[in-house]
Amino acid sequence: MKAVRYNGPFDVSVEDVPDARIEQTTDAVVRITTTNICGSDLHMYEGRTSMEVGRVLGHENMGVVEEVGPGVQHVQVGDRVSVPFNIGCGSCRHCQSGWSSFCTRTNPTEGMDGAAYGFANMGPYDGGQAELLRVPFADFNLLELPAGDEHEHDFTMLSDIFPTGWHGVTLSGFVPGDRVVVYGGGPVGLMAAHSAMIRGATEVFVVDQQADRLRLADSIGAHPIDFSQGDPVEQLMEATKGAGADRGVEAVGYQAHDHSGQEHPELVLDNLVSSVRSTGGIGVVGVYVPEDPGAADEGAKEGRISWQYGQFFTKGQTMGTGQAPVKRYNRQLRDLIVTGRATPSFIVSHELPLTEAVAGYDHFDKREDGWTKVLLHP
Amino acid sequence: MKAVRYNGPFDVSVEDVPDARIEQTTDAVVRITTTNICGSDLHMYEGRTSMEVGRVLGHENMGVVEEVGPGVQHVQVGDRVSVPFNIGCGSCRHCQSGWSSFCTRTNPTEGMDGAAYGFANMGPYDGGQAELLRVPFADFNLLELPAGDEHEHDFTMLSDIFPTGWHGVTLSGFVPGDRVVVYGGGPVGLMAAHSAMIRGATEVFVVDQQADRLRLADSIGAHPIDFSQGDPVEQLMEATKGAGADRGVEAVGYQAHDHSGQEHPELVLDNLVSSVRSTGGIGVVGVYVPEDPGAADEGAKEGRISWQYGQFFTKGQTMGTGQAPVKRYNRQLRDLIVTGRATPSFIVSHELPLTEAVAGYDHFDKREDGWTKVLLHP
Amino acid sequence: MKAVRYNGPFDVSVEDVPDARIEQTTDAVVRITTTNICGSDLHMYEGRTSMEVGRVLGHENMGVVEEVGPGVQHVQVGDRVSVPFNIGCGSCRHCQSGWSSFCTRTNPTEGMDGAAYGFANMGPYDGGQAELLRVPFADFNLLELPAGDEHEHDFTMLSDIFPTGWHGVTLSGFVPGDRVVVYGGGPVGLMAAHSAMIRGATEVFVVDQQADRLRLADSIGAHPIDFSQGDPVEQLMEATKGAGADRGVEAVGYQAHDHSGQEHPELVLDNLVSSVRSTGGIGVVGVYVPEDPGAADEGAKEGRISWQYGQFFTKGQTMGTGQAPVKRYNRQLRDLIVTGRATPSFIVSHELPLTEAVAGYDHFDKREDGWTKVLLHP
Amino acid sequence: MKAVRYNGPFDVSVEDVPDARIEQTTDAVVRITTTNICGSDLHMYEGRTSMEVGRVLGHENMGVVEEVGPGVQHVQVGDRVSVPFNIGCGSCRHCQSGWSSFCTRTNPTEGMDGAAYGFANMGPYDGGQAELLRVPFADFNLLELPAGDEHEHDFTMLSDIFPTGWHGVTLSGFVPGDRVVVYGGGPVGLMAAHSAMIRGATEVFVVDQQADRLRLADSIGAHPIDFSQGDPVEQLMEATKGAGADRGVEAVGYQAHDHSGQEHPELVLDNLVSSVRSTGGIGVVGVYVPEDPGAADEGAKEGRISWQYGQFFTKGQTMGTGQAPVKRYNRQLRDLIVTGRATPSFIVSHELPLTEAVAGYDHFDKREDGWTKVLLHP
Repeated sequence: MKAVRYNGPFDVSVEDVPDARIEQTTDAVVRITTTNICGSDLHMYEGRTSMEVGRVLGHENMGVVEEVGPGVQHVQVGDRVSVPFNIGCGSCRHCQSGWSSFCTRTNPTEGMDGAAYGFANMGPYDGGQAELLRVPFADFNLLELPAGDEHEHDFTMLSDIFPTGWHGVTLSGFVPGDRVVVYGGGPVGLMAAHSAMIRGATEVFVVDQQADRLRLADSIGAHPIDFSQGDPVEQLMEATKGAGADRGVEAVGYQAHDHSGQEHPELVLDNLVSSVRSTGGIGVVGVYVPEDPGAADEGAKEGRISWQYGQFFTKGQTMGTGQAPVKRYNRQLRDLIVTGRATPSFIVSHELPLTEAVAGYDHFDKREDGWTKVLLHP
Repeated sequence: MKAVRYNGPFDVSVEDVPDARIEQTTDAVVRITTTNICGSDLHMYEGRTSMEVGRVLGHENMGVVEEVGPGVQHVQVGDRVSVPFNIGCGSCRHCQSGWSSFCTRTNPTEGMDGAAYGFANMGPYDGGQAELLRVPFADFNLLELPAGDEHEHDFTMLSDIFPTGWHGVTLSGFVPGDRVVVYGGGPVGLMAAHSAMIRGATEVFVVDQQADRLRLADSIGAHPIDFSQGDPVEQLMEATKGAGADRGVEAVGYQAHDHSGQEHPELVLDNLVSSVRSTGGIGVVGVYVPEDPGAADEGAKEGRISWQYGQFFTKGQTMGTGQAPVKRYNRQLRDLIVTGRATPSFIVSHELPLTEAVAGYDHFDKREDGWTKVLLHP
Repeated sequence: MKAVRYNGPFDVSVEDVPDARIEQTTDAVVRITTTNICGSDLHMYEGRTSMEVGRVLGHENMGVVEEVGPGVQHVQVGDRVSVPFNIGCGSCRHCQSGWSSFCTRTNPTEGMDGAAYGFANMGPYDGGQAELLRVPFADFNLLELPAGDEHEHDFTMLSDIFPTGWHGVTLSGFVPGDRVVVYGGGPVGLMAAHSAMIRGATEVFVVDQQADRLRLADSIGAHPIDFSQGDPVEQLMEATKGAGADRGVEAVGYQAHDHSGQEHPELVLDNLVSSVRSTGGIGVVGVYVPEDPGAADEGAKEGRISWQYGQFFTKGQTMGTGQAPVKRYNRQLRDLIVTGRATPSFIVSHELPLTEAVAGYDHFDKREDGWTKVLLHP
Repeated sequence: MKAVRYNGPFDVSVEDVPDARIEQTTDAVVRITTTNICGSDLHMYEGRTSMEVGRVLGHENMGVVEEVGPGVQHVQVGDRVSVPFNIGCGSCRHCQSGWSSFCTRTNPTEGMDGAAYGFANMGPYDGGQAELLRVPFADFNLLELPAGDEHEHDFTMLSDIFPTGWHGVTLSGFVPGDRVVVYGGGPVGLMAAHSAMIRGATEVFVVDQQADRLRLADSIGAHPIDFSQGDPVEQLMEATKGAGADRGVEAVGYQAHDHSGQEHPELVLDNLVSSVRSTGGIGVVGVYVPEDPGAADEGAKEGRISWQYGQFFTKGQTMGTGQAPVKRYNRQLRDLIVTGRATPSFIVSHELPLTEAVAGYDHFDKREDGWTKVLLHP
């Protein structure tokens, strides 16, 4: 089958690889109809992870079930499904309490809980930027979608970024009526903003400097803040008469940079602490890593971030972090799409055949204007 | 009246000062029967805050109502009361949603929510290490106690440290059946351990190096970990067969130090991240400050702590912080004392007349063996 | 001053009565700008309560502060305010934990917690269908509104029905993505539907038989179910392919009647149990009473309702009940109105001068087509 | 194998039946070491259900894994396990959100969610009062226990009654510091009382009239209330100076009877509403049924209970109901047993070989003094 192979920093290619196949009794194989390039793929693409050369990338996958193992009881061949990026076993303590993103069994990496497809440090699983994908524990992991091809562009957001943005809002301690600030107007940040609007935010601010992202924020009823035009905290305070936000979402991660392009991993955390009122909360879904040899700062190389913790404590804020447990949300989000109340496809800018994935990575990584989200069709 | 006056670093004295009196219609004056020296008094005593010379110290207060203003409707002269260390207005957004520790009205300090008696940066209110104390918004703030003098040593923990330890457990996301590790075996840490036991922890570990504190931890059914005997994380992992804790409580604060006495403000946070399992939570009630000019480290001088944030994110942990809203808990804790299910007085080591407060501060500050908690009686 | 006086069943009049005035130090007097007739006023109007002859009616009040007592510290003369229908003391256990609707101090009625203006069994307080209203514990109870007269028709819903509808959704255990059925398309039911939509319901169904109400439900994006056209449970099941609702809201109360007009106090509860899936929840804000001498059924006379409890248990459903604690929600709802995300004024059908209140009661009580909500202006 | 067979009302026998065996790839077979007679077995034994003649009884099971199907990935032959009484599929919406007691797939009965072993209306599964038990979806359902035979008498409570009592406390909305009243001092009621004590109740009252049960309540620190000595609500109010309880647990069910032995299905619900303060909560784990042809009352025959609903609403109480999702609690409860903080075996009165099950049913059903809980060993 055709698949997107990681060859090294800034080097991917579409290659012929052996077909994905049933390996355990509880596996399924899914024929991919749509698979997206994710912002976190770029951490790998840019060589800022320990991704192995030769792995197939792609953790935002959907398609149709092609084959099931003999231990699969519910999923059936022909089912249209969304594949959550987390691979849960369904029976460990975390999976059973709604934390499939921290499954204690599926990732053999020492000291790491949680597995994913085509992802550095998250187990040996190949990704779905390919024609076929092997899905372990298929009954537990797969989400059934209505048959046909309706809502394909919306449903394809169910595997990762829509639940991830939604989770960021949840981690912030959001309640309806709250005012929310989202740092980062990339796909995840825009999904967080969309989620907060759907869930009854009084108002939502999205901080970024890319014009295309700020336009999209505006298009869903959020207020764009362009940090290239001045301190975003000051802009927020001015817009809110000094009140700031009740909740903040971090959708940037450890490669945060200032207007000049200089990386400052503490920058967004500091701004969040200043933006959010006392007793407010911060949800962090932008990725931070325990080791980052490519970091400029000595502390950051070993995962240390020197942020305004004293202020955080003094304001009595809370913080929730980590990868989203997709399964906790994807049923409801699917239903919101079906009834037209959620339309996450608003971020899609490009659709390419899988064979043009290389160009897709290149344009998206350069954050070229208008390349907000790329879908691939095998 | 007699009162404990702050004169500067390592210098307090018992002086005659003007009697506390009704200043606003909603005030009461309380005749103090017991007032304690708190670990956070030591931050001020040691000159590590901006405490004004001449202020009366003391925020752990209880006594009998001596006088009430004309706007007080419920509290009556003669009521025996506990005085929460937080001063809430009772009508701002935070007070009304259970966050009296972050009252937006009672602290005139720019950018600071929350007021307290005799406390740096927390408003102009004198403390209760004195014969009389003025209590603003008496109907809202005071907790009624059973008349008489029963449980005096237990009830005196209701103004601060018992609710603070309890809050630390709550902030950690604790649910019954969890295993808890508490860093810091001082009064607040021991109250957190006591709270976790009362609330159904599977087991509780307390990390300290002072023998008297570790003995007290053992006396309430917790497992002491002596960090002078080796890495506390390793000790915890050995005791739990590698599972670590579900929840952690930080009861140390910004003056954390290693076995040699060297300050390392990031030390306890790092240990907590390593001690707690993925998706677990950390409650921080040890105090961190936005500015600490006396810190050794450049970042710490401005409130920055360079801790293992990448690991924190990767493990999907949560963190809650800040001063406890005493009123949210003190009724229930009072009732637990009355029925004998809580006995926070187990930490009391010394009772002194108010006139011997100077010696009390000196011994307690030196962490002399056996000086775990000092009560003062005016 | 002019005020609406209760004279007996189906008999109210606008009379000159003594001006409302400061009685306790913590009172304020509010000059009413808008006051509404509520569906629960009709229980009194129809003589189905023990309302005393001579009392002034009206618990949905807003206006401008005219005078404050000497114990009022924050509210100021000239403030534009919404007056929650519940009268809380601000310092009892319930008020302090967010349950101002069950204040243990303000209602002297034996065995009843919670007070209100102009309401049977809820204390001796006169209502606000008048020029002036006395507001006890003004600092605690009053909600500040932006000065001026903008949003008057929306803000007037903040005193009762918008928070009550919102509370019904909360009591049901609603989470975003849930499907909701609301029984009763009167003002409270429509507010519940509006609330559920704002908070991210997948879809909302409103059950009633009055055409005007069903049109309004449709106008806010909910699906109307006309129970005069057939069993509402069957209609719901058909519309949801047998899945039913995740959550239900009861917005009818003890005077529930079938299509023929016959009272069946168990009817709506039975329908809710059948409409909601197993493990789902039901929020009850329609009023049920401990004694109803006017009831047709013997049990109902003493507050007993014989409903399908066995099914309720077998489905593992939950139920929350009772009058809404307005203060827990009104700040956020005010802010949602200010940013245009909530527009509860959509239900207003009539505005009358206070002097025409008698006609207002008459038309509204007869549920005349188009009389969905009546505002009175003194 | 030997097994306890249901032959009809008051008629069970120990018979030779075909061995339990693997039927689906994801099944396991467990060799039973201990299986208990449950109070809910008595509903069936007494002929008050539609239990089929010939079925094997027993849903409180533990043992050692004898065999696993090819789709079982984690459970291994030789594992010592507790078998939750609920049979969940692990992949439906309810199982995945912590509601394995309402699995939408495993019970083929029309309109019923949730399956169990050897239980009327809960699917075709044989029970475990036998030498061997077939366990569907073994990876999802089985809880691993420490190898050996330690804590056998405590661990055997993990399959049903300890989690069920714990769930009753949870459904009541309990928070630490609450005062709890439990109606029903049978095994489930005593487990609820034990749970509330472990979780930090201020005090716990247990209402029953059997001396052995009241003695056991006293032995775990709860206060017994003997309803044969007078109205239990009055006794509670006297003991609490009129305050009543914060939370109530229903552990009796539809066969509730008064002191004379007369069934009154509304009796316990009425007492709970009166016993619990306004805004308090009630957790119902005593079983109520949608149809009870053997009931004395017409309404009760079709599952209607005519209880004091008006008072329930007026007090703003909440109610949670239904069978416990054992898996949500059994890991933590197991760990509390291992550390000695929970000792549910205190209720065990008799141990019998499986072959003497008939006598066990007979004595237990007659509530003979001292027959509080019977364990069977195959």
